[in-house]
Amino acid sequence: MEELLITSPANPRLKALAGLRRRRARETEGRTLIEGFEELELALAAGVVPRAVFYCPDLMADPDAQVRLVRDAAAQGTEVVRLGRAAFEKVAYREGPDGFLAVVDTVTRSCADLEVPDRALVLLCEAVEKPGNLGAMLRTADAAGVDAVVAADPVTDWGNPNLVRASKGTVFSVPVVSDPTDTALAWLADRGIPLVAATPDTDVEYTEVDYTGPVAVAVGAEKTGLTDRVLAAATHRVRIPMVGRANSLNVSTSAAVITYEAVRQRRAATRGG
Amino acid sequence: MEELLITSPANPRLKALAGLRRRRARETEGRTLIEGFEELELALAAGVVPRAVFYCPDLMADPDAQVRLVRDAAAQGTEVVRLGRAAFEKVAYREGPDGFLAVVDTVTRSCADLEVPDRALVLLCEAVEKPGNLGAMLRTADAAGVDAVVAADPVTDWGNPNLVRASKGTVFSVPVVSDPTDTALAWLADRGIPLVAATPDTDVEYTEVDYTGPVAVAVGAEKTGLTDRVLAAATHRVRIPMVGRANSLNVSTSAAVITYEAVRQRRAATRGG
Repeated sequence: MEELLITSPANPRLKALAGLRRRRARETEGRTLIEGFEELELALAAGVVPRAVFYCPDLMADPDAQVRLVRDAAAQGTEVVRLGRAAFEKVAYREGPDGFLAVVDTVTRSCADLEVPDRALVLLCEAVEKPGNLGAMLRTADAAGVDAVVAADPVTDWGNPNLVRASKGTVFSVPVVSDPTDTALAWLADRGIPLVAATPDTDVEYTEVDYTGPVAVAVGAEKTGLTDRVLAAATHRVRIPMVGRANSLNVSTSAAVITYEAVRQRRAATRGG
Repeated sequence: MEELLITSPANPRLKALAGLRRRRARETEGRTLIEGFEELELALAAGVVPRAVFYCPDLMADPDAQVRLVRDAAAQGTEVVRLGRAAFEKVAYREGPDGFLAVVDTVTRSCADLEVPDRALVLLCEAVEKPGNLGAMLRTADAAGVDAVVAADPVTDWGNPNLVRASKGTVFSVPVVSDPTDTALAWLADRGIPLVAATPDTDVEYTEVDYTGPVAVAVGAEKTGLTDRVLAAATHRVRIPMVGRANSLNVSTSAAVITYEAVRQRRAATRGG
């Protein structure tokens, strides 16, 4: 395996790498970072071919076993760069780095690029702000078998390193797209996919709706929820019953509860049919 | 309203306040911090009487409307201290502080102190590490009407400021207790509360179990899940169906999905009966 070795934290390539933490740089270059063995492993399994992999055996939990991931990437044509400990720590963005960092192309697809099955299950996230919430929703989407996650009027880009990390790499395995809200709504309407919008302002509980056909579940921004445009376009507006004092579930929790109700109904329908 | 005014960031009281960010200091003093208007409002509504409230009108989003919370606390006998901006920023632990910080007694109850109804719904979290996950589970417990949240073999204390914050103050409205795992399991057994344990190592899906009677839902540590002791004591071991590549939901997401399945069944049973 041919490779470059960088030991100086002042090396200019490292500065360029660290620059990808900024959204502007990610958008200009069309690239982003994946950090962590588990995340990189998942991305490779999903078919991602990184532009480059930077690794540091000194920081790995189990170098003998883990370094094979670097070899796998190299075998696919990925450039491989070995970093000294100080050099790696300069570019790592998380606490307790584990010696794996990769540069990959950013996901920049839109609804028009999507191919979904007839009985599609879609999750639409409008203007959700926190990378951690989007990451958590991607893990749910991956586990639940959601066919696509649509960021409508996105505030956070799919390449945000905190999102990539919170998603445990599922941002590379789940089909994700971005579009203006109007475009996303038009795409759903064109395909005849009913929209179920989560909002506290309704008497219909989320368990009262039929999710066994094609369906999109929509959740909105952390503080303000879904916009009137989405609520107006919704086939059903549903609420999750809440009896507590705080009266607000986290947006990723709400998405999980409704998505898994859809899964429950769909599995029951399949068993019954 | 009588009050003290502190403008110097070097004031020794502020140092003592900042010290409560450390678990050791919290445990020694039996006190913790609540930061934020929303969180403090919820704690007061839940009947918490803070030891002291520190506030800074310069940092408030809407001082005229929000300062009433300080007056409400003062009316209940809470000491009130006004801080200058630099002084407040010295003790604030979150980014973009909103001018509210309170010192409250730590919750230190155990299962033996709990009074739960006949048809109790309990959430047991064994050795969950991340304050954000425990906070998210408390928000779910609050919304779902969970009767008690038990931290078994806790790694994080209920007074952890990041937990208090992530819980949006629900740590003060939901009955929370801590106990060694064995004590918690004995408490459930004594009361005849069946235990439903979440684990990937079972063929029983979480939707196949009856949650309409008294029931405790158990989830385990982020990386390792529930210990064998809990799994052995469980009435049912259940899994959440996952079809994705990553094959792991966040622990707070798993707790929410199962808890809301319990809520769905209980509401349906009530309507049917």
